[in-house]
Amino acid sequence: MTAVYVIGAGMTQFKPHPQTEVHELARQAAWAAIGSSGVEPRKIELAYAGHAYQGQCFGQKVLLRIGVTGLPVVNCENACASGSSAVWGVFNAIKAGQADIGIAIGAEKLASAKGGFTPLVADDLESSLGRVMPSVFAMMARAHMERYGTTVEQLARIAVKNRHNGVRNPYSPWRDEITVDQVLSAPMIAEPLTRLSCCPVSDGAAAVILASERLAKTYTSNPVELRAAVLGSGIANGVGMADDHSEMTIRAAKRAYEIAGIGPEDIDLCELHDPFTIAELVHCEDLGFCPPGEGGRYVDEGRFDLGGEVAVSPAGGLLSRGHPLGATGVAQIAEMFWQLRGEAGARQVPGAKVGLAHTVGGGVTGIEAGATSVMILVK
Amino acid sequence: MTAVYVIGAGMTQFKPHPQTEVHELARQAAWAAIGSSGVEPRKIELAYAGHAYQGQCFGQKVLLRIGVTGLPVVNCENACASGSSAVWGVFNAIKAGQADIGIAIGAEKLASAKGGFTPLVADDLESSLGRVMPSVFAMMARAHMERYGTTVEQLARIAVKNRHNGVRNPYSPWRDEITVDQVLSAPMIAEPLTRLSCCPVSDGAAAVILASERLAKTYTSNPVELRAAVLGSGIANGVGMADDHSEMTIRAAKRAYEIAGIGPEDIDLCELHDPFTIAELVHCEDLGFCPPGEGGRYVDEGRFDLGGEVAVSPAGGLLSRGHPLGATGVAQIAEMFWQLRGEAGARQVPGAKVGLAHTVGGGVTGIEAGATSVMILVK
Repeated sequence: MTAVYVIGAGMTQFKPHPQTEVHELARQAAWAAIGSSGVEPRKIELAYAGHAYQGQCFGQKVLLRIGVTGLPVVNCENACASGSSAVWGVFNAIKAGQADIGIAIGAEKLASAKGGFTPLVADDLESSLGRVMPSVFAMMARAHMERYGTTVEQLARIAVKNRHNGVRNPYSPWRDEITVDQVLSAPMIAEPLTRLSCCPVSDGAAAVILASERLAKTYTSNPVELRAAVLGSGIANGVGMADDHSEMTIRAAKRAYEIAGIGPEDIDLCELHDPFTIAELVHCEDLGFCPPGEGGRYVDEGRFDLGGEVAVSPAGGLLSRGHPLGATGVAQIAEMFWQLRGEAGARQVPGAKVGLAHTVGGGVTGIEAGATSVMILVK
Repeated sequence: MTAVYVIGAGMTQFKPHPQTEVHELARQAAWAAIGSSGVEPRKIELAYAGHAYQGQCFGQKVLLRIGVTGLPVVNCENACASGSSAVWGVFNAIKAGQADIGIAIGAEKLASAKGGFTPLVADDLESSLGRVMPSVFAMMARAHMERYGTTVEQLARIAVKNRHNGVRNPYSPWRDEITVDQVLSAPMIAEPLTRLSCCPVSDGAAAVILASERLAKTYTSNPVELRAAVLGSGIANGVGMADDHSEMTIRAAKRAYEIAGIGPEDIDLCELHDPFTIAELVHCEDLGFCPPGEGGRYVDEGRFDLGGEVAVSPAGGLLSRGHPLGATGVAQIAEMFWQLRGEAGARQVPGAKVGLAHTVGGGVTGIEAGATSVMILVK
């Protein structure tokens, strides 16, 4: 089977875009990705579009705005892993020899369209009684603190690190660094998580162009291989079930490492699912970057910093770039593309050769069964 | 690449199911499909779930109810072609060698959950001014009548034929035959389409199990090959643009015939996208079963009857089985499975060897760009 390469990427800034409709945001991202790849729009053979709330036939509508139609377009949803699922769909189609060039698009308007809240599942009893996302992750934090002695300062340092990275990323809306004290004294959302421990609610879009080995090198001498793309399902985190880790992430990561023929020690940078500080900590452990329970210490020692052993959330992560659901998983692949080509500017991870992208969708309150994706990219 | 076979199918009756939640409907269909295939649930390697309105991580929730988790699950949406897109996704993954056994699930609750109406696109000006589905298809009917001399009696005969088939299908809610006079004198919905010219609003679910050549024959000596599965995109019908045919259907059908190595003259039975009588007529022409404009005459001559040249809508079609959006495309494949194995009971198409399934999603009012799928199955 052919190798699959990323040959182009584009995205909008992640922030409230009250004046721009979501199809236009996605069009901008797709157009930027196409432009950066050098592929003629009509040469795109297949598309997946990931989103959670943007209505029917979203991908077709976006592509029609750039004059691309006729091709197979699948709109896919996997909650916060919707964008990753779109990348996975295109990756598979190219692996299968059904297309040589495909586009994955992800987009969401949350900040503008939904009044600042991620809509809950209307008929879910637990959500309606307050088991909303911040409280789920607060319970996860409490469990981790109880079990391993993780501290609120360690969690706050993750927010500080990701903001430090985010202010270096022009796609992030943040321009000011923050301190541990600021994180700890910010308004409490769900104890121990303050407002600065939670990702902002954003609008945004991202797109990547994937190509088969046969064609990738006709477009660029500098492609990035998407070596493994694993999609799994299960329960995201066993919060309330005496387990503060993500079994489905652990399984998907194991499989991705097997496919790529590398281990966590080889990863130079990682964009993972960090809607809350605790999620980054737990996922660093789940992905094998440190032993379970050691995440706090690794954060203290700066091992996940831009210059550390694994640069985690070099673009700012969900925490400091934002999390427009469908866009996130695609934006991660875009970031990997730029980082592994050495084009990430002020947030560049020095000497980055191998990257890992990870998302989790659903699997918690109101969405009892969810999705996870782990992708490994190699320069 | 491996051939892909259908080795199991299941569905619920299509009708209002006010007491049953949609995940339970889908579970019933999936369980029936799994049971009919003989596959152990844990051997299912991949799933696609098609729906338009059923919330996040739908497929994962359904599969968790039968103890299936961990596998890749993609939820996909392509309006009325959502179910077909799910089948297409599984077909592709098996073709790609990424799975040997996969399940496609489709489901929707419209009659119960949405108060009897297909929700419109909220911000679409044309829809809000009355350009809703019945009026779009009424314009299509008027254009066809004007151009080709098609009559309201010919259109009514399609409803009569499909009801005749539907009453022989235990999955259809209808038990009474209807006459041309009844169709013509039913309450007018959008002239010339009366209530009996329009599909009912239903709840329902369907599922099929697909397998690679390597494994299909270990489960059944009687598999049905899914020889071609083509997904296209474009404008569904150029209503209001002086064209009453579906260019994207014509293109997808051409490609599917090429892949399958057969022509329309080889098709014994066809389940197509007939939410309104006129749609069946137009699509029979688009799929090549008769020359453009000749559909009415072919209907008069009984050529699309169960015993005719091509049995069109042998299960009753959308018109007389119902159209729970996500379920429809999967139900078509289930019907092909039963028909081509000679298991379709009172609605059996005699000697059926080759079947074609066709859906159209979006591409009209409020959803300007849509999807189409054409699949060819062979015994």
